[in-house]
Amino acid sequence: MPNDWEEQLDGLKQGSVRSMARLITWVENRRTGWMDAMKTIYRNNGQTRVIGITGSPGAGKSTLTGKLTSTLVEKGYSVGVIAVDPSSPFTGGALLGDRLRMKTISTMEGVFVRSMATRGALGGLSLAARDAVKIMDAFGKDIVIIETVGVGQDEVEVVKTADLVIVVCVPGQGDGIQAIKAGIMEIADFFVVNKADREGADQVVMDIQTMLSLSSQDNDIKVPVLKTVSTTGQGIPELVETMSDFLTNTEKTPKKTENRIREELLVLLEKETARALRKNWVDKGLLDKAVENIISGERDPYSIVQEVIKTSLIN
Amino acid sequence: MPNDWEEQLDGLKQGSVRSMARLITWVENRRTGWMDAMKTIYRNNGQTRVIGITGSPGAGKSTLTGKLTSTLVEKGYSVGVIAVDPSSPFTGGALLGDRLRMKTISTMEGVFVRSMATRGALGGLSLAARDAVKIMDAFGKDIVIIETVGVGQDEVEVVKTADLVIVVCVPGQGDGIQAIKAGIMEIADFFVVNKADREGADQVVMDIQTMLSLSSQDNDIKVPVLKTVSTTGQGIPELVETMSDFLTNTEKTPKKTENRIREELLVLLEKETARALRKNWVDKGLLDKAVENIISGERDPYSIVQEVIKTSLIN
Repeated sequence: MPNDWEEQLDGLKQGSVRSMARLITWVENRRTGWMDAMKTIYRNNGQTRVIGITGSPGAGKSTLTGKLTSTLVEKGYSVGVIAVDPSSPFTGGALLGDRLRMKTISTMEGVFVRSMATRGALGGLSLAARDAVKIMDAFGKDIVIIETVGVGQDEVEVVKTADLVIVVCVPGQGDGIQAIKAGIMEIADFFVVNKADREGADQVVMDIQTMLSLSSQDNDIKVPVLKTVSTTGQGIPELVETMSDFLTNTEKTPKKTENRIREELLVLLEKETARALRKNWVDKGLLDKAVENIISGERDPYSIVQEVIKTSLIN
Repeated sequence: MPNDWEEQLDGLKQGSVRSMARLITWVENRRTGWMDAMKTIYRNNGQTRVIGITGSPGAGKSTLTGKLTSTLVEKGYSVGVIAVDPSSPFTGGALLGDRLRMKTISTMEGVFVRSMATRGALGGLSLAARDAVKIMDAFGKDIVIIETVGVGQDEVEVVKTADLVIVVCVPGQGDGIQAIKAGIMEIADFFVVNKADREGADQVVMDIQTMLSLSSQDNDIKVPVLKTVSTTGQGIPELVETMSDFLTNTEKTPKKTENRIREELLVLLEKETARALRKNWVDKGLLDKAVENIISGERDPYSIVQEVIKTSLIN
């Protein structure tokens, strides 16, 4: 492993926030040596609990994350926040408002905030977020909160392996429940109806409960639906208490750990082999040649791919 | 190729809608023989133009798609619609309301409507949608409209290769412009401000124009911003005319075709090799063994993946 990696890994061990930030960036950028560094980090992973907060845009997730974070810090926890933003390269990331909110959190003692955009993460968003969790874990964070917009497969994957998944809804958002239909209902451990001082909050609570009762395959598991007003802090103590109960009662079971490891390994395998393949095809001019052959009508994409799978001996 | 595939491919050639529907399903499910079938279909591809319609949930995309479709049918075009819904397995796809709207379109003469969910498409959403476009093309559709929620990388990829991309916005949606920040601004050929009879429509138009002027790298390209009320049909004729002008003036240039083919080939390569790899690892018990080794502390995910890339000879 190159020296500069060693230096940052030492820094991480000694509690340098700067080293943690640098490592996350380097790993996200797939800088040469990243896999070797992650091996070391993986060996130093411990007991960090991961909380995923997701919901539609405008549900007040950032404010809620901020309030939660400050409450957890008051209780003595060291907290990391990963704000995942499936943003446009156009806007260059989060909106100014979000950034300002995040800045307020990040000035708190014992809190480390990291923004992450879809773009720029070479291995994809979900791998980048998972790597960042591992780096924060090795640093010694007790809790990592991942905040993400709950739409799109990538974002769902990000929160899927959290120890606790909170889905945030809000009254009066156009199609109401439509906002939370995107593959996240079934991974929610809790629902939070935020902005609960608004008209229609109780209706949203009822809608969620109806959906839950219609879907529930396991009637023994009761999914809590809580109400908060994150701007005033109303409902936050109850939320933290429910979270704390949940995390205490659901230890990292061997089965859950196994599933998480299996899922992570598969995603890493698929994404990194695909990336190696793409690089190889571009670097060696195979891609240009293939495109040429398709345009000239000599070949078609499907027979090319069949051949690659047959000859590449993927095992 | 198995006989049942041959039968459906014959049906497709003879204009059987039933065969078209069946082929889309079989290909989406990666039924054995799908790649061979796609080779035949690819050879029969012609001049279908693809229109991508995207925007946040509740922007009225379905109604707009319906109005557009009926106008195009009146003008004598044969139209296919692919409604992509990054839905929950929980809700089982589109909401009832959307389905009813789609049903109305699908009863029109010369219109074929296909719903598609993230889940169930084994090769991923964007491949499934592209395959469906090719099948509709081989059937003889003049125009295929892909309607998709514009959030998440997968959905962006779906519309990215359309000949014309329309982004639908709407006044009064919480954070306004925030709804359209998710990686789609820069791929829009047009913007449509729908529900333009609502308060704040002109503000949205101005916001979009401001964003466009701030971002524009090429000042020669003017991105039209149109206003519609899809429920009443207001603005639809102007939209169809602008679309028609756009499609006439932007022929399929060699460069654009080359880029599309390159992108499609890479996605197909990556997704299908990843799928083959996953299958191999599961079938041969390699995955179980690797997970075991990770849990016991003998190995770590990163060294395992490094080894696979090194030995699998991806070329």
